[in-house]
Amino acid sequence: MNVEFINPFLQSLLNVVSTMASMQLTPGKPRLKTDNLAKGDVSGLIGMVGPQTKGSMSITFDQSLALQIMQNMLGENPGKINDEVTDMVGEITNMVTGGAKNLLAEKGYDFEMATPVVVAGVGHRISHKADGTKMIMPFTSPYGTAYIEICFEN
Amino acid sequence: MNVEFINPFLQSLLNVVSTMASMQLTPGKPRLKTDNLAKGDVSGLIGMVGPQTKGSMSITFDQSLALQIMQNMLGENPGKINDEVTDMVGEITNMVTGGAKNLLAEKGYDFEMATPVVVAGVGHRISHKADGTKMIMPFTSPYGTAYIEICFEN
Repeated sequence: MNVEFINPFLQSLLNVVSTMASMQLTPGKPRLKTDNLAKGDVSGLIGMVGPQTKGSMSITFDQSLALQIMQNMLGENPGKINDEVTDMVGEITNMVTGGAKNLLAEKGYDFEMATPVVVAGVGHRISHKADGTKMIMPFTSPYGTAYIEICFEN
Repeated sequence: MNVEFINPFLQSLLNVVSTMASMQLTPGKPRLKTDNLAKGDVSGLIGMVGPQTKGSMSITFDQSLALQIMQNMLGENPGKINDEVTDMVGEITNMVTGGAKNLLAEKGYDFEMATPVVVAGVGHRISHKADGTKMIMPFTSPYGTAYIEICFEN
């Protein structure tokens, strides 16, 4: 996986959460994912297909952070992960990937996005199965942690 | 979503599990998904992008069924969902989608597959967020239940 692929997703998540939820996430250090340490309660996943490569991206949230983003965006906090929360996570996944797609297109990398899928379940783990390097980026906040994971085929 | 899109995935899952694991799943009745009833312990997800449409597909297994497929395919049962089981679920997801892709290409529907992602977590739920009809197909076996869910954008 080309390292140039990473920063647009990181930047795009910061932008989306800042714009939509008036919340500043603190990005941690991107690293190669060699284990299954990223756990969360609600995840948005999306597939990407381009002429040069294909891959997948996920954003995984702690329940507490997802609910706080919901509170900030819509002024309501359902107290649990319901359909409105998964809709919001799907929408964030779409917006983050769309933002990264635009940034990457400027660098000559094109891909088409599939449609997002959202997983809800306490403490689930995500494994990207593309045959390429997996990158994981943690984001922290007072409300909990989020992780972006990306994998593109070589 | 065109109803012609469904049967190739159903047929392909039956073929893959029969060929790879010598196991006959019993297909239930495909139905529109209007709730979040499908729950499972390990799921393979994949995005699809084509000139006519885009969408996503998931296959969700009970842990007991996934472990029995592992036992039949590889002669070993790790007793829990580990990396080898998620690799197997990712591989099944790829093979089922590849089989369906070939069947659909014969009907003039083309799409490219993204790479699979596997989710592990007890009792998780999947929501496909494409803006189209969602179909769900249950499969039963003496070892547990599996579900295919598909959504293509209109």
